[in-house]
Amino acid sequence: MVKLILNGCNGKMGKVVTSCLSDFENIVLVAGIDKNDSKCSYPVFSSIEDCNVTADVILDFSRKEALKSILKYSRSKKMALVLCTTGYSNEDIDLINEYSNYIPIFRSANMSIGINVVNNILKNIAPFLYENFDIEIIEKHHNQKVDSPSGTALLLAHTIQESIKDSTELTYGREGNKKRDPNEIGMHAIRGGNIVGDHDVIFAGSGEVIEINHKAISRDVFAVGALRACEFISNKYKGLYNMDDMINL
Amino acid sequence: MVKLILNGCNGKMGKVVTSCLSDFENIVLVAGIDKNDSKCSYPVFSSIEDCNVTADVILDFSRKEALKSILKYSRSKKMALVLCTTGYSNEDIDLINEYSNYIPIFRSANMSIGINVVNNILKNIAPFLYENFDIEIIEKHHNQKVDSPSGTALLLAHTIQESIKDSTELTYGREGNKKRDPNEIGMHAIRGGNIVGDHDVIFAGSGEVIEINHKAISRDVFAVGALRACEFISNKYKGLYNMDDMINL
Amino acid sequence: MVKLILNGCNGKMGKVVTSCLSDFENIVLVAGIDKNDSKCSYPVFSSIEDCNVTADVILDFSRKEALKSILKYSRSKKMALVLCTTGYSNEDIDLINEYSNYIPIFRSANMSIGINVVNNILKNIAPFLYENFDIEIIEKHHNQKVDSPSGTALLLAHTIQESIKDSTELTYGREGNKKRDPNEIGMHAIRGGNIVGDHDVIFAGSGEVIEINHKAISRDVFAVGALRACEFISNKYKGLYNMDDMINL
Amino acid sequence: MVKLILNGCNGKMGKVVTSCLSDFENIVLVAGIDKNDSKCSYPVFSSIEDCNVTADVILDFSRKEALKSILKYSRSKKMALVLCTTGYSNEDIDLINEYSNYIPIFRSANMSIGINVVNNILKNIAPFLYENFDIEIIEKHHNQKVDSPSGTALLLAHTIQESIKDSTELTYGREGNKKRDPNEIGMHAIRGGNIVGDHDVIFAGSGEVIEINHKAISRDVFAVGALRACEFISNKYKGLYNMDDMINL
Repeated sequence: MVKLILNGCNGKMGKVVTSCLSDFENIVLVAGIDKNDSKCSYPVFSSIEDCNVTADVILDFSRKEALKSILKYSRSKKMALVLCTTGYSNEDIDLINEYSNYIPIFRSANMSIGINVVNNILKNIAPFLYENFDIEIIEKHHNQKVDSPSGTALLLAHTIQESIKDSTELTYGREGNKKRDPNEIGMHAIRGGNIVGDHDVIFAGSGEVIEINHKAISRDVFAVGALRACEFISNKYKGLYNMDDMINL
Repeated sequence: MVKLILNGCNGKMGKVVTSCLSDFENIVLVAGIDKNDSKCSYPVFSSIEDCNVTADVILDFSRKEALKSILKYSRSKKMALVLCTTGYSNEDIDLINEYSNYIPIFRSANMSIGINVVNNILKNIAPFLYENFDIEIIEKHHNQKVDSPSGTALLLAHTIQESIKDSTELTYGREGNKKRDPNEIGMHAIRGGNIVGDHDVIFAGSGEVIEINHKAISRDVFAVGALRACEFISNKYKGLYNMDDMINL
Repeated sequence: MVKLILNGCNGKMGKVVTSCLSDFENIVLVAGIDKNDSKCSYPVFSSIEDCNVTADVILDFSRKEALKSILKYSRSKKMALVLCTTGYSNEDIDLINEYSNYIPIFRSANMSIGINVVNNILKNIAPFLYENFDIEIIEKHHNQKVDSPSGTALLLAHTIQESIKDSTELTYGREGNKKRDPNEIGMHAIRGGNIVGDHDVIFAGSGEVIEINHKAISRDVFAVGALRACEFISNKYKGLYNMDDMINL
Repeated sequence: MVKLILNGCNGKMGKVVTSCLSDFENIVLVAGIDKNDSKCSYPVFSSIEDCNVTADVILDFSRKEALKSILKYSRSKKMALVLCTTGYSNEDIDLINEYSNYIPIFRSANMSIGINVVNNILKNIAPFLYENFDIEIIEKHHNQKVDSPSGTALLLAHTIQESIKDSTELTYGREGNKKRDPNEIGMHAIRGGNIVGDHDVIFAGSGEVIEINHKAISRDVFAVGALRACEFISNKYKGLYNMDDMINL
């Protein structure tokens, strides 16, 4: 049984994590940490330093500013740490690396298991297919999303670019009279309604097309990935871990 | 039984028409017209003026330059005419309109029945959906296609724009930090391999998405549409006809 | 401004309706009715008879057993009624019809606007396409769904069957050596994960395929449809109304 | 430059191979073998024994009955052999294995490179995903196809079944009241029009869905795969090779 402390338990993702816990028989949520004190079925502390509950893993869905205090706490209590917050600076990354000499730390840019599986598939097949297949990426998100293309679409594109030897170039949409250049990777950002998040990687060849598609149905997907990471890291040695270690294809 | 003369019988589309004829029990190909004389199962004349075979309909898959001679011939022989050539000038269009006072003439920008059905669907649903759904169009074609977006994607977009009262604007791809404007219609041109032709119109709303999709599998689709038009027009009065008259939803 | 009473305000769908209300500037929720009394931003009555708040429309997301009391209440208060409960008996339907002689009543088997738009499209195009296109329906739902195919897939299939003259037959999956019969409509029920609800109607012809697809993203879609129905019916005369009256393609 | 002899050059696939050759600069077709003597741009022999042209590889798209004579010829001439014929008996397979002690032989159940890439992806990801994702396979083919599901869908399903430890069961379509069993793999055969061949493998999990899709656009795909196999095997030692050796992910 993995004993879990949830940092940011009353935020949007904290609540999703709490509601997804019922599917994880091996995890018990022993304490939460959040400035906002709303009714929870577990004890909630307003600051991490006040939390005196014994646990195996701290799951962090708070803010990047909280990083240092979480690292200190985890090390002093010898707890494993799963970091799901984004936007860390280079100094933050260095600090995380340093603390991974003392405790096991899990960190990933995208907590969805499916996206990480897709990313692994691309790493495997893009170098072989590139010579004879054209690669295009379509992503779809809700109409309130500000950035185009999505960070995840860029993640997938960069994985493809790094995996193939030739230099390639990202092309954002097309208009006018110009044939496709063989070294282009087309990037297409569709926006509409409240689509949660679709990513489609197309390999179009002579007489055939392969598509690798990922659809996020709800935020649950990030909570489920985070809770699996908690299970995964609960019995690991000190060090830095990410989704690739966990999905182990 | 509809007796057919095929103008341009040894061109690319002429050959496809010939091979699709076996599925049309009511049509018999009585003569072809083509400068190139290759072996055919029917008599082939090198110019339309030389053709002295009695027929009901002339199906034209030749070149726009041939328009005047075809119109004259059809009128003098009192035959119906199906025009599948594209690129006509305004003067050509005027001429076609004039001749439609004497003979039945069928003309369409896209001979695929499916695309015309999709176009009709859009005309019906876009005015109602527009207020609460975001509209985006994705089209996919082979990597040798020069123009983006495809003429058919523009046809569908213009149908939508004309059907709704508000003014809308076509947006070709997205990059950078900018939220979707509600009056945008996103246009996305995917290019790769030898994809024949896909068109996808997306209506994305609150909690739901409707997609109307058309896939061309082969050039057969244009031949089949043209042959149906021949059946359709064979018993019509003088006048101008198009796909909308034929599909009659 | 439409004043709304929500019957079943603390049930699953009642809560979704409450959270979707912020997108409807013309609707104000003046009272709720529910046995379960939880904190709401509006007054909640434990039974409909106790509710003495003036309103224009009653939106019902409760249980079929409550039908009679709702009808009586609506008539006595001269309020319009939107019924979103399912599973009514023939006697219930008769009762609804009778009360529609006195008040405006809106009822639909599926409150999603998108599904009703799709249903209308099918009614229009199936009679024309049937002769030359094969029709197949694929639906996808979560792995806890008990019935196959989904009620909505059957609704769409029946709409198609009623719209075409020839007699057709539903075929549920295929295995073994048997060619497709032209009068078959294939029905395919995919089950997996927590897919909310996808319906795909395929028209496959000579060289082309048309697909009409609907994806439900969340339960919001039913709340939004219900709230639109409330707006729609708020200024109508007595009578029976459904989605077809509202979407008015 | 690879010198090629094409066995079955005037059959359906033989003609497709001939037309695809222009894309392969490294391959020259030096002779064909076919009972039917039609005009070709290369010498055609009516039986393989009569062929006295020097070559590196024999590509076989003839009939399984021709196996023994091809094997003998290849061995005596020390040519590599690419076998694209299907339906071999166990004795045939034994014979192929025996001859692979003397010459390089390439054989695959499906000559499409894309399908073999998909098959490899499934082998990699199914064991990891199976525990938390439901697996379903949808395949689409033309309305004249007799067998359901397709041989390729079964190939993909068996790859998945062999890769995971638990015992699983294929389920062909669904009708009635029965929840999905976690160890089911749903198999769905859609038939319509002249769809060339679509295969879709769905992994549906908690809040996310991964789809691996393959679309065949034309028979070209099998010719291209076969010609790549010819290039691949032209400089190999004796032994048995298949697509997995070639695609080398």
